[in-house]
Parts: sequence; C-alpha cells; structure tokens
Amino acid sequence: MKKIINEANQVVDHMIEGMLATSPDLYKRLEDKNVITRKNAPTDGKVAIISGGGSGHEPAHTGYVGKGMLDAAVIGEVFTSPSAADIYETIKAVDSGSGVFLIIKNYAGDVMNFEMAREFAEAEGIQIDQIIVRDDIAVEDSIYTVGRRGIAGTIFVHKIIGALAETGASLAKIKEVAEQVVKNVRSIGVATNPCTIPAVGEPTFTLEDDEIEIGIGIHGEPGIERRKMMSASEIATYMLDRIFADIEINSEDDVAVLINGLGATPEMELYIIQHEVEKILREKGINIYRAFVGEYMTALEMGGCSVTLLKLDGAWKELLDAPSDAKNFFVRS
Amino acid sequence: MKKIINEANQVVDHMIEGMLATSPDLYKRLEDKNVITRKNAPTDGKVAIISGGGSGHEPAHTGYVGKGMLDAAVIGEVFTSPSAADIYETIKAVDSGSGVFLIIKNYAGDVMNFEMAREFAEAEGIQIDQIIVRDDIAVEDSIYTVGRRGIAGTIFVHKIIGALAETGASLAKIKEVAEQVVKNVRSIGVATNPCTIPAVGEPTFTLEDDEIEIGIGIHGEPGIERRKMMSASEIATYMLDRIFADIEINSEDDVAVLINGLGATPEMELYIIQHEVEKILREKGINIYRAFVGEYMTALEMGGCSVTLLKLDGAWKELLDAPSDAKNFFVRS
Repeated sequence: MKKIINEANQVVDHMIEGMLATSPDLYKRLEDKNVITRKNAPTDGKVAIISGGGSGHEPAHTGYVGKGMLDAAVIGEVFTSPSAADIYETIKAVDSGSGVFLIIKNYAGDVMNFEMAREFAEAEGIQIDQIIVRDDIAVEDSIYTVGRRGIAGTIFVHKIIGALAETGASLAKIKEVAEQVVKNVRSIGVATNPCTIPAVGEPTFTLEDDEIEIGIGIHGEPGIERRKMMSASEIATYMLDRIFADIEINSEDDVAVLINGLGATPEMELYIIQHEVEKILREKGINIYRAFVGEYMTALEMGGCSVTLLKLDGAWKELLDAPSDAKNFFVRS
Repeated sequence: MKKIINEANQVVDHMIEGMLATSPDLYKRLEDKNVITRKNAPTDGKVAIISGGGSGHEPAHTGYVGKGMLDAAVIGEVFTSPSAADIYETIKAVDSGSGVFLIIKNYAGDVMNFEMAREFAEAEGIQIDQIIVRDDIAVEDSIYTVGRRGIAGTIFVHKIIGALAETGASLAKIKEVAEQVVKNVRSIGVATNPCTIPAVGEPTFTLEDDEIEIGIGIHGEPGIERRKMMSASEIATYMLDRIFADIEINSEDDVAVLINGLGATPEMELYIIQHEVEKILREKGINIYRAFVGEYMTALEMGGCSVTLLKLDGAWKELLDAPSDAKNFFVRS
C-alpha cells in the first residue's frame, strides 16, 4: 500500500501541522505535544471534555474539537495510545477549574494511559471523571481489549456530552448522562479490505477477493466471521439483527443512526447501506430522529463500514441538535 | 473490488434514497428523476444554480445543494453524464422566473447534454446561461474531453457563484464572475490506486505497487506521467510547480487552497500534503486566505488526491465566507 507521506515516524506531527494551517481559528497545538485543543482553551465555567487515542482514525478525534463538543483531542502514534504524560498535560491545559471529563474508547492501552493521567490530575486536586465507551457488540474480548471495543458510537458520546458540558452541567451530571448514553449505543462493523500502518508497510490482515469480515475492529482485530461477499441488503440485515439481539428497541422508539465509512468505501455505498437500514427500521416502526452518513471514525484506508444505533432519551435530542463548531460535526447555532 | 451494493443498475437510485432519508429537511427528489433539489425549490428572486454530472464523485455534487450554493444537482449513472431530458426538467423545476445558471465540468457528454437542455429551456423562454469549468492543468485533451478537464476546482465555482446568486445578482453578473473564477482556478491530481465502476467490476486502470500516476483524471483518464512512488514533499512540489508554470501567483497574493481526497486516501495523508503545500506557499510569500482539506470530489475508491489553488479577487473572499447550508460545505451564518 502506497502512502502519501514523508517519513513514517513523522506522520502524526505533519498531520497536526496540516490541521493547524487549515483551521487556524479553531485549533491550537499544545506546545511540543501531539495534542489539539480549542483555540481559546480553557473555557471558563464549564467542565472540559477530552478524548483521544491512536491516530489513523481521522476525523476522530480532532474533527470533534470545538465549541459544543471536545475541548481537546490527544493524539497517539498510528493505532497506538497517547502517553499518560501527554494526556496529563492536556488535562492541565484545558481545566478551567470546573473539572475535566475523559471520553475513552475501550482499548487496554487507552484505558491504562487515560486512567494513569487521571490519577496524576487527581493528585493535583483537579476534579476529574471518565467514561469508557464499549459500543462494538461484535466480540467480548479482542486483541487490544478486555470487554467490548469502543468504535464509532463514541461520536454520539462526544456530541451529547459536549453539548451538555456547554450548558454548565456539573461533572456528576455529565458522568450520569454519559453512563446512560453508553448503555444505549450499539455498533457493529464489516470490512471488505484491510489497511496498512505506515511504519509497518504490510496490511493488518488479508481477505480474499470475494470475502467480507463481519464484526472486525477499527485496527483490523478479528470479528465474528468471514463470509462470501454479501449484498448491501444482506449486510444491513445481518448487522441490525445483531444489534436488536443485544438491545431492546421497540416500535415508536426514537433512534439516531450513524453509518460510518472506514476509509476507502465510496460515499455512494454508505448511502446505499443507509437506505437499507432505514427500510428495516421503518418496517419495525422505529423512528429515525437523526441520521449521519460519512467518515466519522476511520481505520486508515480500510474498506467497509459500521452501523451505530443510539436509542434516544428525549432529553438527548436537544443535545444532539445543539450548536457545534466542530469541523466534522457542525451544527448551526 | 468488492462493492457494498445491491444490483449494479440500482446504485444511483438507492444512493439518492439514502440521501433523502438522511437529510429530509434539506433535500427533495425531483419525481422519478435522479435529481436532488433544495427542499424549498424554487427560491423566489434569485438565479437558480444547477450543477451535476456522473455519479461516483460524491459528495459532488449533491453535497453542495443548499442555501448559499446549488439549487439542484443532476445525477448521472456512475461516471456517465445525466441526460439532457433530466437536466431540462431540473431547469424547469428550480427556475423561479429569475433565470438559471449551469455549472458544467468539461467532459464531452456533460457539455453536450447540459447545452442541449439549455437550448430546450431557451426555447421555452427561460433566461439561462452557463460556465464550463476546466481547472485540471494536467492534460489538454483526454479520453472524455476536448480541452482541459473539470475537477475539484469546480467546488470553488459552486461556492462563490452560489453565494453571489443568493445576493440577488443578475444572470449577467453571475456569468461575468464565473468566467473570472474559472480563469483563476487551477488543479492537478495524482493517483496511487485505481477505482472500479460497479457495473464493470474491473479496475479502470492498473498501477504497479511502487507507482504513482501524476495528472490522472477523476475517471482514471491518463495523466502526464507515471513515476516511482514519491514522498509527500516531492508530490506537493511537483504539483505546485506545474500550477505555478500555468498561472502567475505572486508574493502577497491571496489564495484559497483545496486538498481533495479521491476516495481511499486517509485524511492523515491529505493533511500531510496540506502541510507541504502550505510550506511552499509560505516560502513564496503567498497568503492562504482559506484552506479546505477532505473529500470534496472523489472517484469512487481511487487512491490519491488533487490540489487546487484559486487566486482570490478581493470581492470573492466575502462570497467564499458567506453562509452555506450545503452538507459538505457548511459555513455558519
């Protein structure tokens, strides 16, 4: 796989410099760190929301930094957790004295480093709490994970919690809502083609020309099964059957839907999946309150997509629709 | 190449249905046609702006339909011009009596069908004019083109002309500005991997594992030359050298930059190219007024990117920054 890069060990630094040059009014870089914060961070009178993780999943999480969503994104090397030291510096940089909340995808490295940073911060007297997102229903444990993995459903946590923080909600209230959102969000993905980590140079896995892997992770971690390539209708049916087996969503319930491209799948195909998902939900009498289709959390140039359903509590609709300045989840004020 | 589709002959219809389900407040479908218009079309008192072309380039052009940009996008089969009949019906549907302006990418089929539709409309007494975008400096003629091809620079034409139309500008004024914008916009692309048309099932071209093709078109049309894979710095230098050989841009001039992913290139790599482009422009003392990085005009799952520079007239800055509701070029009001 050819990469449009310079040196493989500089990709994160060069990417961040490109982001800063593109959005100078939105972003600032934490000095000498692979961290992007809001331009005007810290923001007085609100709990600061931090997320992050390995790079290679762009626009996650930098694309969600901005008023109404994240205060900062901490960026690791490709598919590698950021260090506890960088997370700790980020916490100190964005805390306005109102506390900090960490949104962590469930990978062993991320959980370890975010929790270590949290301990450092607590020792300094910073009010801090966290949520671990585990939305991927495919497998219980995986290469990098104990328990379920965190994938694209994390974007809904960013949006709802980010909007809630903007209202001046307390750290305790934010924690309470985050736990409820995580209980109500489910995702599952499929892959049609692998991706290649720049520093490795070889694909993370191989698939035959006529194969699809269901339940694959966003780093190529094994999923549920490999099958012969299926139609969009079959893929959507399979994915929603698994989600409905895992969470009760009834007729008249409201959901938010996220159809997420993993990197190389044409937008055309994502909308074809969305059309199939919408048909299935309509047949069940489930109401799509909002749908989002695009690349929200990728795996470099992996082919495939994930489907996320968030069963909506009434109060979350307003938070989902609240203004956001984030580059990749812009909502008009 | 595996495709997440149902039947290859239904991909456009299913995609449009997915788009409508995702953005019901923004879009409406012209009955029985592969056409998306603004929900509230026609808009009184303004010239209607129409673009379109073959599908497979999403988000072009549907992602640019909305207040401040296009009134409608006419959608052909994959890499195939829409019919003159569909374009003609679109013209009638969005004309409020203030006239219609067509933004056409320079491909023989598009030019023929848009111009035929224009003649039908003129015969009905509709005020109508057009611009043909020819921003791709790579080659003079190509498989589907006499003269230069229209590629991602078209998005800047959409934005500036769309914003101008919203001010109530006359058809004559719109034509005049469109001609000036087209004279000042230049693009060039590179490909690292081919794409596959669903109904064909085979890649549109082949590249060796260590090859890059410079100047390739958004349907895989041949470019300038094939070379051994280059670094991001070398690619950016090569592309900007070609652009600067074709248009005079001096120190202190303002430009808008668009780094466009062709489908399968990770956002990380697009920002790395942006970083290199920004360094070169800064060395020349050229001021980046705005930069845009992402997938704006793709070629299904082609690997690679294009760079577009628009030399900015002072008056266009305001139009570039004017509010837009378009899904893929949102600007806050």
